[in-house]
Amino acid sequence: MAVLDDLSEYLIAPDPEAPRLTRVVSGMDQDGVAQQINVVEERPLTIYLNAQEIVTAMTIGDYPDYLALGFLRNQGMLSSDDEITAVEYDEDLEVVVVRTARQTDYEEKMRRKTRTSGCAVGTVFGDMMEGLEGVVLPQTPVRTSWLYALSAKINRTPSLYLQAGAIHGTILCSADRPLVYMEDVGRHNAVDKIAGWMLSEGVIADDKILYTTGRLTSEMVIKTAMMGIPVLASRSGFTAWGVEIAQQLGLTLIGRMKGRRFMCLSGEERLLRDADPDGVAEEPKRSGRKGAS
Amino acid sequence: MAVLDDLSEYLIAPDPEAPRLTRVVSGMDQDGVAQQINVVEERPLTIYLNAQEIVTAMTIGDYPDYLALGFLRNQGMLSSDDEITAVEYDEDLEVVVVRTARQTDYEEKMRRKTRTSGCAVGTVFGDMMEGLEGVVLPQTPVRTSWLYALSAKINRTPSLYLQAGAIHGTILCSADRPLVYMEDVGRHNAVDKIAGWMLSEGVIADDKILYTTGRLTSEMVIKTAMMGIPVLASRSGFTAWGVEIAQQLGLTLIGRMKGRRFMCLSGEERLLRDADPDGVAEEPKRSGRKGAS
Repeated sequence: MAVLDDLSEYLIAPDPEAPRLTRVVSGMDQDGVAQQINVVEERPLTIYLNAQEIVTAMTIGDYPDYLALGFLRNQGMLSSDDEITAVEYDEDLEVVVVRTARQTDYEEKMRRKTRTSGCAVGTVFGDMMEGLEGVVLPQTPVRTSWLYALSAKINRTPSLYLQAGAIHGTILCSADRPLVYMEDVGRHNAVDKIAGWMLSEGVIADDKILYTTGRLTSEMVIKTAMMGIPVLASRSGFTAWGVEIAQQLGLTLIGRMKGRRFMCLSGEERLLRDADPDGVAEEPKRSGRKGAS
Repeated sequence: MAVLDDLSEYLIAPDPEAPRLTRVVSGMDQDGVAQQINVVEERPLTIYLNAQEIVTAMTIGDYPDYLALGFLRNQGMLSSDDEITAVEYDEDLEVVVVRTARQTDYEEKMRRKTRTSGCAVGTVFGDMMEGLEGVVLPQTPVRTSWLYALSAKINRTPSLYLQAGAIHGTILCSADRPLVYMEDVGRHNAVDKIAGWMLSEGVIADDKILYTTGRLTSEMVIKTAMMGIPVLASRSGFTAWGVEIAQQLGLTLIGRMKGRRFMCLSGEERLLRDADPDGVAEEPKRSGRKGAS
């Protein structure tokens, strides 16, 4: 598939050439020939909220400030009306400190988090569900022509996903326009970075669509709802519980979106089926996508 | 690719037909036609060590006893000489209790774990690295002919990965024989289930090879080393830190193993390159693999 050369629609597009995001690793191929391979980075980032150490995330390392803000927001540790007085990043220490006007103390919350700290989907499920009580997602209509346009653009956007693989992408979109494209080794980080950007820019979620390259697990559905975004789409599959939670929350969940195909698993009422699927080009067999298993 | 019909080599093979592992979900496809889709389950499992609640994992739900044992072992909470007096699973409560003769108290450890509870790769990195001090992996030779035979067999083994996608597989192998094939929504769970099986069966790790469908992240490398397995192979990519840790631990790391191709990123000295790559069949373009992004 041809690469998208006009990235002017993006406010933030991936930078596959950024030096800190990848590293050249030496290996021997099947023929015993030495090879140099450009590989995605993975480094720890420790997030503090004021005086309290909250979490260490394994991340590719870009936008640490957005990752910190978004993680804290999606964990319900920052409320939308919290006044953020500073976000300090120390590259050498690999630490981000988020400071708020309000005194914070999550000792008790942290103790509860302990119990889910090994959660297979890398997040704190109990706490997340808490934050969803009373969440009402807006009934913003979504044109299928937008969804087709978005996946066509996103799939052709130069990214680490296309270049080095082994990474997840999450893209904040408005109508048929991709706005912010974040990538990370963990799909939750990519989403949290989007949440952090939205928080620091004061962006409204009501009219947004979240597109991800990754699986639609319960965690992804929950984070999207926490962000107030009514529509989550992916080229990948979904879990039964992800679908169940989307239905409970009235979130529009679209999976297996490839070429003309997609599957709407929840929130069908938002869909305006204005596009003729037969008019949509199938993806070439050998698209550059490496995915991130 | 034809499906492997002789599964006699396996001690435990996947059971894609097991009712509790998948659920039929209704959706509307791109043409507005209602579809019934068989989707992988995802459910919480809370693991206790004696009286202490340790973690809630999101899992597909099979082999909860192995998952609990393996998780605790790979977290260094169970030592190889711990006498396990009982493993009790309550399906209704979705709880597993592992009981040991030794008194256990991980209050302090849990407090430290808190700090990494949001780790993007779904595990407790600090604690894991601790357990690796002094790990020496055996110099067991590995024939490339075994690796080719293994991936050919594994890729044709009926599994949820082939059937429903959105899931990870990890396979414990000996020479060219796949022994135990575990699957889960989180790749760490699949590995932990293998570790739990090895622990409860008293299986030796020295001569084993671990094959995974997923990315070779730092976490996967660390878990493999914790299990004492000297070789980790995957059809997927790898992160720079995963490679770095494998090199530090002297673990043989093989990635991007598809058809005739593979890349050895660490521990080349264990490889006996006895197979001619040109004699190996390429994978068909349209292999059934759905992967798990």
